[in-house]
Amino acid sequence: MIKNISVIKGDGIGPEVIKQTIKVLNSIAIKYGHDFHYKNALAGSKAIEKFGSPMPEETINNCLKSDAVLFGCIGDPKYDHNPIGMRPEDGLLKLRKKMNLYCNIRPIFVFPELYRSPIKKELLNEVDFVIYRELTGGIYFGKKGRCKNGEKAYDYCIYSKTEIEKIGEKAFKAALLRKKKVTLVDKANVLETSRLWREVIQKISLDYPDIDLDFLYIDNASMQIIMNPKRFDIILTDNMFGDILSDESSVLTGSLGLLPSASIGDYKSMFEPIHGSYPQAKGKNIANPLGCILSGSMMLEYFGMYKEKNLLDEAVKNSIEKKICTPDIINSKLSSTTEEVGNYIKNYI
Amino acid sequence: MIKNISVIKGDGIGPEVIKQTIKVLNSIAIKYGHDFHYKNALAGSKAIEKFGSPMPEETINNCLKSDAVLFGCIGDPKYDHNPIGMRPEDGLLKLRKKMNLYCNIRPIFVFPELYRSPIKKELLNEVDFVIYRELTGGIYFGKKGRCKNGEKAYDYCIYSKTEIEKIGEKAFKAALLRKKKVTLVDKANVLETSRLWREVIQKISLDYPDIDLDFLYIDNASMQIIMNPKRFDIILTDNMFGDILSDESSVLTGSLGLLPSASIGDYKSMFEPIHGSYPQAKGKNIANPLGCILSGSMMLEYFGMYKEKNLLDEAVKNSIEKKICTPDIINSKLSSTTEEVGNYIKNYI
Ligand SMILES: CC(C)[C@H](C(=O)O)[C@@H](O)C(=O)O
Ligand SMILES: CC(C)[C@H](C(=O)O)[C@@H](O)C(=O)O
Repeated sequence: MIKNISVIKGDGIGPEVIKQTIKVLNSIAIKYGHDFHYKNALAGSKAIEKFGSPMPEETINNCLKSDAVLFGCIGDPKYDHNPIGMRPEDGLLKLRKKMNLYCNIRPIFVFPELYRSPIKKELLNEVDFVIYRELTGGIYFGKKGRCKNGEKAYDYCIYSKTEIEKIGEKAFKAALLRKKKVTLVDKANVLETSRLWREVIQKISLDYPDIDLDFLYIDNASMQIIMNPKRFDIILTDNMFGDILSDESSVLTGSLGLLPSASIGDYKSMFEPIHGSYPQAKGKNIANPLGCILSGSMMLEYFGMYKEKNLLDEAVKNSIEKKICTPDIINSKLSSTTEEVGNYIKNYI
Repeated sequence: MIKNISVIKGDGIGPEVIKQTIKVLNSIAIKYGHDFHYKNALAGSKAIEKFGSPMPEETINNCLKSDAVLFGCIGDPKYDHNPIGMRPEDGLLKLRKKMNLYCNIRPIFVFPELYRSPIKKELLNEVDFVIYRELTGGIYFGKKGRCKNGEKAYDYCIYSKTEIEKIGEKAFKAALLRKKKVTLVDKANVLETSRLWREVIQKISLDYPDIDLDFLYIDNASMQIIMNPKRFDIILTDNMFGDILSDESSVLTGSLGLLPSASIGDYKSMFEPIHGSYPQAKGKNIANPLGCILSGSMMLEYFGMYKEKNLLDEAVKNSIEKKICTPDIINSKLSSTTEEVGNYIKNYI
């Protein structure tokens, strides 16, 4: 198969983890006779410097024309005080919106070999759930501003039935292929948007009699994720709560650096590790490439390349079993570099 | 001193934990020559049944006239599907607003004797921070509703400079008496209200040169609370984020049942455990009374009764050292009943 992939290396450790991912994807392509064409596009601080915008039109067009986007990470403290719309993060939000990537999928899994979590070991066996986070609506994209002469600020959280239905359907379909449970996380005892979520999701659940649907308030969910993570299969939630819960869940795995994500729209999609740009690690060859490589594996699955995906996942698992790991997930005396991890996985393939 | 205390026992385990708390407060009163007058007031499901409202005017007036309110907990699954404004929780929100209790204080501490937390032990030594949660503003109280023929729902998050200043001042003053650090938790890379919080709090910090101020995004904070809880002293945050972080933090301590809170306004105040009504435990004499008793201790401090507060805290600490604990925090074969814990503490005093 021929696939055109837009590549946004971005800031901080982005270029390093993308480099390993492409190396690995190329081995897959050779082995299975695919043709992956990569096209680099600028975003984040480099785009601010060159085009005066964290997400230039050119990049957006490039992404819209491709079969998928592979995204490193963006964010640079140098630009944190830029005006609104001109910070690296604004670029990411703009791209999500322009590509209509309403469904962010964040799998949470634990490698038992790799016990670096602050949580007691016995709680972690068999932790395996997936967060379905709505990504183009809610308080992130509602009207926001100042009023009363700047004395007040506001953010509007708004959701339509259609928005909720679209991601809801995806979550139920995913649950069918897994442990058949969907947990809707909201704050329906306080928020009207949450009450709409409950209504819509409850209605969808009638079409999925085999799926067990339950509801948790966000405050309770933030406890259960740590105390009883095995209770979860698919967590379905809005943009803001999904942001919080997915980072919190990463604590179970011991490192943000391990976790991939896929952002899916009706026609477009993007794959990015959930870690940020981690500027302190830039250029040191210590960044964990696995979050990005596993995002690549989610991309293979999206392409329908199931055998390819399985082989890549197996290679990652093997690298961990053999303790070829960066220092965020292993004793630093025994650790490997970013490059070494990438090479090991490439050679395994 | 004479103090008039409104008492709302509420639903579920509320009456049981309040009973132990009053027992203990009465011992304090006798020992130090105070006169505590209690006046019961209805709220929650009992008020719905009797007055057709989860927070009758009579209760509000009673609370407004008292020196402080001692609150058990409200919430009953039977009324979860009541119309808006008629659920037990709505009563609590109404009371907070009517009493203008804008500053919710939730201390997080760990008893080392009592290791029931899912977190590794070595991370928990010296965990000791306090959450200052804004309680009468933000998305909880902004305009909310439906539009477009019910196709869309919205919640308005709004904050004024004055609202932020008031709780901000309290947080900085508290930090002066502690480890001299304030962490503002927000989502300033996305929300305009968060940006207003940063501006106002940064300005206040100029008046407190001895206090170290730092900023964390809510997604990062939800990780740091588990991975590195010792980094916190005072966490200052808005209503929604405070709701999530305080429940999440309770995981460190091993039980929600242990944790107290104070809700303070300019003239009025209320003291309540952070646990909910826990209907499954009702009437079984197994509810942990310590969250409520320690809320009573925060009330003593609010009254300026420092010696009294210290003695009560010492009594609680001693009960834990002696392992006189309810089954949520100790092996159930060795556990004591709600009543036994209350009696032990009373007798210690
Ligand atoms: C950078 C930021 C705007 C972004 C978000 O909040 O969505 C990030 O935290 C994430 O989760 O992808
Ligand atoms: C019952 C609910 C409305 C309340 C809140 O969200 O404030 C509770 O969770 C709390 O934290 O006191």
